[in-house]
Amino acid sequence: MDQLIYAMIGGGQGAFIGAVHRMAAALDQQATLVAGALSSTPEKSLASARALALPPDRSYPTWQAMLEAEAARPADQRLDFVSIVTPNDTHYPIARAFVDAGFNVILDKPMVHTSKQAADLVAAVERHGVVLAVTYNYTGYPLVREAARLVRTGALGTIRKVFVEYHQGWLATRLEASGQKQADWRTDPARSGIAGAVGDIGSHAENLVATITGLTIESLCADATTFVEGRRLDDDASVLLRFTGGARGVLTCSQVCVGQENNLSIRVYGTEGALAWRQEEPNRLEFTTRDGPRQVLTRGSASLGPEAAAATRLPAGHPEAFIEAFANIYRGAFEAIRARKAAAATSTERGGRVFQPDSNLTYPNVHDGARGVRFIEGVIASSSAGGVWTPLDNPSQ
Amino acid sequence: MDQLIYAMIGGGQGAFIGAVHRMAAALDQQATLVAGALSSTPEKSLASARALALPPDRSYPTWQAMLEAEAARPADQRLDFVSIVTPNDTHYPIARAFVDAGFNVILDKPMVHTSKQAADLVAAVERHGVVLAVTYNYTGYPLVREAARLVRTGALGTIRKVFVEYHQGWLATRLEASGQKQADWRTDPARSGIAGAVGDIGSHAENLVATITGLTIESLCADATTFVEGRRLDDDASVLLRFTGGARGVLTCSQVCVGQENNLSIRVYGTEGALAWRQEEPNRLEFTTRDGPRQVLTRGSASLGPEAAAATRLPAGHPEAFIEAFANIYRGAFEAIRARKAAAATSTERGGRVFQPDSNLTYPNVHDGARGVRFIEGVIASSSAGGVWTPLDNPSQ
Amino acid sequence: MDQLIYAMIGGGQGAFIGAVHRMAAALDQQATLVAGALSSTPEKSLASARALALPPDRSYPTWQAMLEAEAARPADQRLDFVSIVTPNDTHYPIARAFVDAGFNVILDKPMVHTSKQAADLVAAVERHGVVLAVTYNYTGYPLVREAARLVRTGALGTIRKVFVEYHQGWLATRLEASGQKQADWRTDPARSGIAGAVGDIGSHAENLVATITGLTIESLCADATTFVEGRRLDDDASVLLRFTGGARGVLTCSQVCVGQENNLSIRVYGTEGALAWRQEEPNRLEFTTRDGPRQVLTRGSASLGPEAAAATRLPAGHPEAFIEAFANIYRGAFEAIRARKAAAATSTERGGRVFQPDSNLTYPNVHDGARGVRFIEGVIASSSAGGVWTPLDNPSQ
Amino acid sequence: MDQLIYAMIGGGQGAFIGAVHRMAAALDQQATLVAGALSSTPEKSLASARALALPPDRSYPTWQAMLEAEAARPADQRLDFVSIVTPNDTHYPIARAFVDAGFNVILDKPMVHTSKQAADLVAAVERHGVVLAVTYNYTGYPLVREAARLVRTGALGTIRKVFVEYHQGWLATRLEASGQKQADWRTDPARSGIAGAVGDIGSHAENLVATITGLTIESLCADATTFVEGRRLDDDASVLLRFTGGARGVLTCSQVCVGQENNLSIRVYGTEGALAWRQEEPNRLEFTTRDGPRQVLTRGSASLGPEAAAATRLPAGHPEAFIEAFANIYRGAFEAIRARKAAAATSTERGGRVFQPDSNLTYPNVHDGARGVRFIEGVIASSSAGGVWTPLDNPSQ
Repeated sequence: MDQLIYAMIGGGQGAFIGAVHRMAAALDQQATLVAGALSSTPEKSLASARALALPPDRSYPTWQAMLEAEAARPADQRLDFVSIVTPNDTHYPIARAFVDAGFNVILDKPMVHTSKQAADLVAAVERHGVVLAVTYNYTGYPLVREAARLVRTGALGTIRKVFVEYHQGWLATRLEASGQKQADWRTDPARSGIAGAVGDIGSHAENLVATITGLTIESLCADATTFVEGRRLDDDASVLLRFTGGARGVLTCSQVCVGQENNLSIRVYGTEGALAWRQEEPNRLEFTTRDGPRQVLTRGSASLGPEAAAATRLPAGHPEAFIEAFANIYRGAFEAIRARKAAAATSTERGGRVFQPDSNLTYPNVHDGARGVRFIEGVIASSSAGGVWTPLDNPSQ
Repeated sequence: MDQLIYAMIGGGQGAFIGAVHRMAAALDQQATLVAGALSSTPEKSLASARALALPPDRSYPTWQAMLEAEAARPADQRLDFVSIVTPNDTHYPIARAFVDAGFNVILDKPMVHTSKQAADLVAAVERHGVVLAVTYNYTGYPLVREAARLVRTGALGTIRKVFVEYHQGWLATRLEASGQKQADWRTDPARSGIAGAVGDIGSHAENLVATITGLTIESLCADATTFVEGRRLDDDASVLLRFTGGARGVLTCSQVCVGQENNLSIRVYGTEGALAWRQEEPNRLEFTTRDGPRQVLTRGSASLGPEAAAATRLPAGHPEAFIEAFANIYRGAFEAIRARKAAAATSTERGGRVFQPDSNLTYPNVHDGARGVRFIEGVIASSSAGGVWTPLDNPSQ
Repeated sequence: MDQLIYAMIGGGQGAFIGAVHRMAAALDQQATLVAGALSSTPEKSLASARALALPPDRSYPTWQAMLEAEAARPADQRLDFVSIVTPNDTHYPIARAFVDAGFNVILDKPMVHTSKQAADLVAAVERHGVVLAVTYNYTGYPLVREAARLVRTGALGTIRKVFVEYHQGWLATRLEASGQKQADWRTDPARSGIAGAVGDIGSHAENLVATITGLTIESLCADATTFVEGRRLDDDASVLLRFTGGARGVLTCSQVCVGQENNLSIRVYGTEGALAWRQEEPNRLEFTTRDGPRQVLTRGSASLGPEAAAATRLPAGHPEAFIEAFANIYRGAFEAIRARKAAAATSTERGGRVFQPDSNLTYPNVHDGARGVRFIEGVIASSSAGGVWTPLDNPSQ
Repeated sequence: MDQLIYAMIGGGQGAFIGAVHRMAAALDQQATLVAGALSSTPEKSLASARALALPPDRSYPTWQAMLEAEAARPADQRLDFVSIVTPNDTHYPIARAFVDAGFNVILDKPMVHTSKQAADLVAAVERHGVVLAVTYNYTGYPLVREAARLVRTGALGTIRKVFVEYHQGWLATRLEASGQKQADWRTDPARSGIAGAVGDIGSHAENLVATITGLTIESLCADATTFVEGRRLDDDASVLLRFTGGARGVLTCSQVCVGQENNLSIRVYGTEGALAWRQEEPNRLEFTTRDGPRQVLTRGSASLGPEAAAATRLPAGHPEAFIEAFANIYRGAFEAIRARKAAAATSTERGGRVFQPDSNLTYPNVHDGARGVRFIEGVIASSSAGGVWTPLDNPSQ
């Protein structure tokens, strides 16, 4: 398979998520990093490019310089996509600029800061027909896709209740006061936006619910809290959910749960069956039918559906994990990018949602990103009002 | 140790919980069942008494007949206590009558139907100085007592967040329509009161939180639901909790979680540590300090405190379970009953809360029962109003 | 149900297993302890009897005194059985004497010291037609019985491989040097016999294999070790097993596995399916068919067979554990004792093996006990010879 | 970091392990595949090279052609290493030829067929001073390295007992009869050598024991079995181990354990502590000190040593798995290859064992490979003799 070429914005020395994106892009040997504007500081940007052995002529001090130079390159040197892994506050201007210049974009979550920005970005993506993937990476796990398939095929009957949790403990103290980089920007409203834990991890939880259940949140009632003194954003939230159609849910996210590492889990109960999955042990999915014994479905086993199989690289018992799931998001975007190339630049964005009727493209797209932003706004609005039921706007796509 | 003698009200043929109470009373060979009014139907009552080989002169057709006859017996034949295991609606009149006649009482939960009844029963118990134990049996587990001790001794620091769940699946269909006895009365407002799942299992969850954390619920916001069509009471609820002092919590209870058996669990997160316990695997307690590895504390191990040790019959690795925990509630009540006998009838009720400063008596008492009833009323009030924050009344005891 | 009456030999103050037997006998309220010779020291024996509030005229200084006096009582005061819970070395003389006097006996394991004694006891039991139960208590667990049923009904196909382990850590240091009573007699050849860990826990493992699989050990190759310096008996052993018919197995037992509490587990693999069970989490049984997902069968669930159901007291999710399993052995013996009473003393022993064709009696009987003794002798013989394959004698019963 | 370039031998279309090696090599973006002789069939070899988009002038029909052509290239085009992923029977001739031509080699396990070949290859590697890594990939897991560190630093005291298991179920039926490629060559003595399960997975178990404990097997007693009728090699074995110094062990491997996927696990018990690790949940390591509670150590947590940290790419709770562990073996080899380049071709092989005193190179080297071959021979010799204790030769390295 011929190589895609890409550039990265952000993700220089000291960053965490940039390296993850690069491993995810490299794993299947489909893409090569050829350009970068790796830091908001020009010197650090160039130094980071050298550390990654990027060609000097494609090592840029700023993303604006990159945009100008790369947009001017001839078609046979054209970047297939750019990966944007900067802090949240710069997502919108950077992504918007590259989309407007016709580049495909892979973008970290939460997609942008406000639902207004989100709507604008949706419109831009649709106008330019580019591929935009949002790295809600947890939906790349094969057993998340199997869970979604089980729901879609009716194995759970009508869904009644959903529990989703995302609990971490690393912000149980005021780590940002020590200057720790990850804590610093995540607790800074200027860079993180209106929400702390809700935006950083609660949005993953929302996306997991949407991806697996396909349900729409109609309204929610949230109690977001800042437990650590001096912190400027929430570090914990509990949210009651009412879904269209009558299902109910509870979403909790916290970064002050001492001892919890990255405990994202979901349990879904329907009239006919139930399932449970936990990110920290991603190779097993519990599935129960009414009155039957609990079954432990394992990644790679023959009984799973084609969606899980397509996201699987190794046989059962040879565990896959975070990087492989992340690479599945990239792989889904690659497929869409190749399809767009094949169809020439005239085709329009067809989206990448799991199980899209007319597509097997499997990556969270700009609509998922926009819904996530509306969710964050809804939670903060509800909580700020003292914990009142707040409807969520769900524009038809 | 000389035997206590007791009578049972309810718990005849076909009942489930009566047999559990009898095993709990028998396990330590401290108490003998000598009398019974085992059913609301006089013929069934007498037939059940015969099946249990009770002496004919202490086999009663009704609890009223028992009360009259037993109250008239001389002191050396005096019942040491009565166990009341009838459906909820009869708890108040029966318990009240026996308390007023000066009998010690062991009573199933929820204690009574209304907070008015609860307050009256509290007053009666205090007036007569009898022992009244409410069988919130899950607090009898040794590791629940260890969990409470860890909180009391500061191992968790200041508590921030509590998650408690009680999930079952046996009412996922309209089982009551089949005439199944357990489902029938639990879904009948006349016998169960204003709440279904909230009263039957949510109240256990509330008691577990109070026992372990010692926290007081200041207000709550509840979303109770009836998922099964035709059912007359809630079968699911999610409740946000705000505790005095700033801690937050989430309590969920459901009887429609397909595949769940009796999954009561609690997780408590504080500034310095965390713990997690699950009723279905009651011999292990997870405990984590900030930055330390997760520890798995096991029942019977040398590192546990005296409260857990006192509730333990077997060495580590020789699992104890539901009946033994239930028997610990009985054992705590026995101790109080023997203490009252020793002190003559003039002593007043000193309560039986775990870690009561002036006492090692360890059973849930009438105040726990009353608080549980107020909790149920609060949840239903909040939910009926559409899910609004509702303060809980917490009279000083 | 009218009460059985029984006497206990051994199990006085300071003993562990005596209290377990008494709880097991009491749980179902079918038997009352009325007599005792509770210690090998006459004064302790009588003091222990007082502590248990036994009637003075049935509190004996020695088992010989008890035998003489109780054998002389009239039929309506006749003991229904005696429970023998003394150290191993006295099992044979005491059990033999009571059997010869026509008493039913419940006896701790290992049954006796030598296969010669075992054969003699088998003959005596058969001659006198009494009930003799050996408390291989782990076979009382409902899911052990379900496991045996799954094997018998062919759910596993032909068994190929069995792994059984019994690992403890409490003897990892020379605890006996401290005078700790349990460690003291278990490491003393005079009281424990030729084997330490092999006799104390390895014999349970052997019994579990035989009960679940029904397989016969044809030969074995053992490596028994004494790791703790100064100890006089083995504290660890690994044994390769060859079963009649070609199945293979590995049995390991150890009391020096630091951190292990009472970890008895078994895994059985057949041509069509597999199962796994672990004593420390006794309410779940893993079952897998070839190519199907792993299933978690739980005690009390509707899909289990009648043998498990008959051994179950509580609904699924309300865990049962060690004492309840022990009580199931007693319950099985009670049933046989009542059957013998009903049939008058002329009937002959029909044994109590699980799934005995002509019987639903479910307790390990004298033949299980004898087989266990031959197993211990075989392991020690093989290991003493340097670890050579040693055939086991398996007399037809 | 500048790219290493490499060639692959074997691993063409339809192969499994070749793709794993390529992902492992790609993950850290340190190496690029530039040449290949990907099949034993020339046409398939070239077709596979086209599918991987290899340059035509470095796509070879046979490994011999590759060797000749690549050895003739100038230094600046010199392959940094070759990865050999062919069936076992060709390991020796291919590896030997490339070693003799001065190439660094990464080689699948078992390294070669006979201990004679192994000794010859050791000598050749030492003579030529090349890097030779054997992909005992499971030792690449961070927590395996932490386990080894805990043993080395004395946290377990003196080791007494080791249990290691490698259980799979995929060969429970005669899958090779269906022509399934993986089953076919693994059960064919011509390609697999004298052992089936023992060579394929038992050798991984041996390597895991050696890596973690550092113990030397002095003698063993094995019972290898072929359960599936018509199969030509063992599909199951149980092995008793005696280590130099007195520790004992049990190693079992099986490919007929229905329902088991890739269940490699190890438990080590010492005088002071114990540890347990399981490949299917590789991000947790259980560690217990005598009398302390069981601790669950997790990959990425701050308490781990530098060896685990160096093998870790993601924070705690973001699971890593099989491919990342495999990539750690490659990374260790890369480090050695770069060191050799830096030191010029005059340096001699310094080995790559974990914790080598004078090195932080962390890959299984030719000595590990040779020891593994001797282990396989010892097991088969012992078992073929009926299961007798057989000494293992352990030449000093």
